[in-house]
Amino acid sequence: MVNYPKGVHHRSQAANTLSSGKKSLKGLTFGRRGMGLEGEINQANEFYLANHLAVVHKKPTPVTIVGVDYPARSAAKITEAYFQQPSTTDYNGVYQGRYIDFDAKETKNKTSFPMKNFHAHQVKHLADVLSQGGIGFVIVKFTVLDESYLYPASKLIRTWQAHDGHGSIKYQDLVANSYAIPDSLSPSLDYLKALDLLLADIH
Amino acid sequence: MVNYPKGVHHRSQAANTLSSGKKSLKGLTFGRRGMGLEGEINQANEFYLANHLAVVHKKPTPVTIVGVDYPARSAAKITEAYFQQPSTTDYNGVYQGRYIDFDAKETKNKTSFPMKNFHAHQVKHLADVLSQGGIGFVIVKFTVLDESYLYPASKLIRTWQAHDGHGSIKYQDLVANSYAIPDSLSPSLDYLKALDLLLADIH
Repeated sequence: MVNYPKGVHHRSQAANTLSSGKKSLKGLTFGRRGMGLEGEINQANEFYLANHLAVVHKKPTPVTIVGVDYPARSAAKITEAYFQQPSTTDYNGVYQGRYIDFDAKETKNKTSFPMKNFHAHQVKHLADVLSQGGIGFVIVKFTVLDESYLYPASKLIRTWQAHDGHGSIKYQDLVANSYAIPDSLSPSLDYLKALDLLLADIH
Repeated sequence: MVNYPKGVHHRSQAANTLSSGKKSLKGLTFGRRGMGLEGEINQANEFYLANHLAVVHKKPTPVTIVGVDYPARSAAKITEAYFQQPSTTDYNGVYQGRYIDFDAKETKNKTSFPMKNFHAHQVKHLADVLSQGGIGFVIVKFTVLDESYLYPASKLIRTWQAHDGHGSIKYQDLVANSYAIPDSLSPSLDYLKALDLLLADIH
């Protein structure tokens, strides 16, 4: 196995934070697996920000705050709140002057991707983004296959409408209409590589 | 006073939701005042979205969730959480293909705008946005004067650095370096009008 001094350190930190606490001698591979798709995207976004390649942030989880305590000499404590349905996607930002907007979905399925992973309001939001000239997509990861794809919003919207939000996309159809995110070390999910291919195709 | 059938209804609803419950016979003016700057921006964003002019959303308030209860047959209830310092600005989105990113600040001061309203991480974020070719700005409202301005991030960053984050910008200096947001009915804060002037100047 090759020794990757830079990658290992970064990923190990993330794995420590995000994994379930298990240990593995195959640090590199485990580190990435332990992160989950969201962890991989966050790591990529940190890398892009630090290297002035893109500015992309995950939006905070929306919550409805019902009760707050203000203890003396301490920070305000939220004592009652509920999770809200997000009205948009989880990630947006700017890449070379362009607005980009996407969500991330993973599945253990190996042969298809269930449409129920996409909510109507997210599909509508991506359609709004496209109509304003923004770049919309979904990062889909088949976790068992360890394959990730950038699936353009234009394809998702048409497929979702054709299926009326039900059923699933066959693996082959998704792959044929997507841009594979190549294996990479730092960041492990270098999705800008796939985005460059999408941008080249739409111009 | 002119009768504005469309505007009154929309703004009155918002005032009912957002004001402190006081009533006024001057519905139109009070309606807007009762909304506060955040309410005005949310109303403008809803108007822009419904009319396909721009897609801009406020980001959720970031909270660190510590405790969650999962009662049987009910929604998950967050029982302990704390407010986080936001790492970015409050609003971003896409306007005619361009990435826009901004924060909103109001002051009761009539002669200057205190620099302490801008946090270092927000100024850094706006600088990151500009370096990626995004459009960054701050909407500043002098509430007593009832005047709102679109203050470009490039000016804010230079002024903030010159003041080392302290002191304040004189009202005249801010106005001279900003684009006035004109009075409008629906939405009350039609900030895209000022943004068009900024975009015309930087091209």
